[in-house]
Amino acid sequence: MIGSEGMLGVVVEITVKLLPLPERAQVVLAAFDDVEKAGKAVGEIIAAGIIPAGLEMMDGPAIQAAEDFVHAGYPTDAAAILLCEVDGSNQEVSEHILAVRKLLQACGAIQVRTATDDAERLRFWQGRKAAFPAVGRISPDYYCMDGTIPRRALPEVLKKTAELSRAYGLRVANVFHAGDGNMHPLILYDANIPGELQRTEELGGRILELCVAVGGTITGEHGVGIEKINQMCVQFSAEELAQFRAVKQAFDADGLLNPGKGIPTPRRCSEYRMLGSHSPKHDGETPT
Amino acid sequence: MIGSEGMLGVVVEITVKLLPLPERAQVVLAAFDDVEKAGKAVGEIIAAGIIPAGLEMMDGPAIQAAEDFVHAGYPTDAAAILLCEVDGSNQEVSEHILAVRKLLQACGAIQVRTATDDAERLRFWQGRKAAFPAVGRISPDYYCMDGTIPRRALPEVLKKTAELSRAYGLRVANVFHAGDGNMHPLILYDANIPGELQRTEELGGRILELCVAVGGTITGEHGVGIEKINQMCVQFSAEELAQFRAVKQAFDADGLLNPGKGIPTPRRCSEYRMLGSHSPKHDGETPT
Repeated sequence: MIGSEGMLGVVVEITVKLLPLPERAQVVLAAFDDVEKAGKAVGEIIAAGIIPAGLEMMDGPAIQAAEDFVHAGYPTDAAAILLCEVDGSNQEVSEHILAVRKLLQACGAIQVRTATDDAERLRFWQGRKAAFPAVGRISPDYYCMDGTIPRRALPEVLKKTAELSRAYGLRVANVFHAGDGNMHPLILYDANIPGELQRTEELGGRILELCVAVGGTITGEHGVGIEKINQMCVQFSAEELAQFRAVKQAFDADGLLNPGKGIPTPRRCSEYRMLGSHSPKHDGETPT
Repeated sequence: MIGSEGMLGVVVEITVKLLPLPERAQVVLAAFDDVEKAGKAVGEIIAAGIIPAGLEMMDGPAIQAAEDFVHAGYPTDAAAILLCEVDGSNQEVSEHILAVRKLLQACGAIQVRTATDDAERLRFWQGRKAAFPAVGRISPDYYCMDGTIPRRALPEVLKKTAELSRAYGLRVANVFHAGDGNMHPLILYDANIPGELQRTEELGGRILELCVAVGGTITGEHGVGIEKINQMCVQFSAEELAQFRAVKQAFDADGLLNPGKGIPTPRRCSEYRMLGSHSPKHDGETPT
């Protein structure tokens, strides 16, 4: 049922497991002059066996938008910042913060700051949490994508996303759940300009296909629905899609549950594949 | 795929996630004059938000067999023992051991011992791990069941298992993964006595149906296969079993993957249900 987007059944009851709150939480903010270095630092933290409670990356445009909005204390000249939170017992947190700081410095961070108190810790997070509305302040509209990539592919994906951004003439700010490889490019656009929404959606599709090309997936947490149904044709083979249809059939023989979502028809996929390499179109046409 | 027992596909590659070893591990052994008190102590430990690395219970017959075999230092006059291991950072372990000891004492443990060094810790575990071969020393054969129950139902299930044991004239020793409610009754029998294996299998089935009656399941970790296929008719409704068949059909239309296992046919279930209340039979007949 998890991840089925309501296509296999209806959840009527959920039992949750409660875990005790950690004794203490502490966050480190690190600034980098290069996103590649920040990406490498993420890998080093995970490889060291530290399991952060949060590990988030923001790129330059996202940092600036967030800082202008909530004044979180971010260095606005950085190419990327990382926020790494660890929690647990007092001793564990002290040890992990020390280890994380060392790793960040070894990876070439130009600034490493540990929040001095809980107020500063919450301010650091407020910037990250305000990134979406902050972007809304500098652009009439924004479109949030959701793709997941192997962590090592982050520098390549950010570079190619920047190239696509230039090709489509649309700004992209990046917010990234770095610890689990889940990226959220925010495409800035203006729905009042004829054709711009269509170009935005097309650019979003290209970014997702880039995620697939580096070994990732078209969704990390937001799902497929109808928005990404064409990209299902890119991520999965005809045989895999046939298997998905068979599973749905086993639960929903009459096609009553969320019809038309998630799993593309063979016809849709063959039409989408015929469109070919998806070079940017500036005439407002969408591929389907 | 997890739990499908090879009925939905073939696993060709597995990626494992490695976690760092904990800094330290420590175990507490507690003895009780009553299994109900031991069962209550398990619930109190979990309710206190402590997540033990291991939480195991053994009843009198299992304690005696293990102690005779490996001399783990168990109190052989106890009705039940609990082994509770906690791991983590040094500080965390010290705090949790203290909390666990207090809870065990409050629940009426007649003896609470923390292993004084790693050698004693391993000896405590050796007894538990040797419980199966140890039972093999006091009986020509044994049959290990695997059922899971809500933790609160433990005293009731042990009491009714003892009643069934008397009714069938077969000894039962109990080993219990107490933390997750997974019980392993070991039925002691002699395959050279005509009909005794059949009565043993029937008693095993009755114990599993007892697990279902208190809100549990017929397997915790050992699976269904063909051994417990009749009990699938007890645990699941005809509609649920039809759904299982539809899922299998979606993955294995030709019925090539582990045929005949796990999911009973409607005919088998109606035959098994016709047998009624399953009172103990001493003539060596099995219900199917």
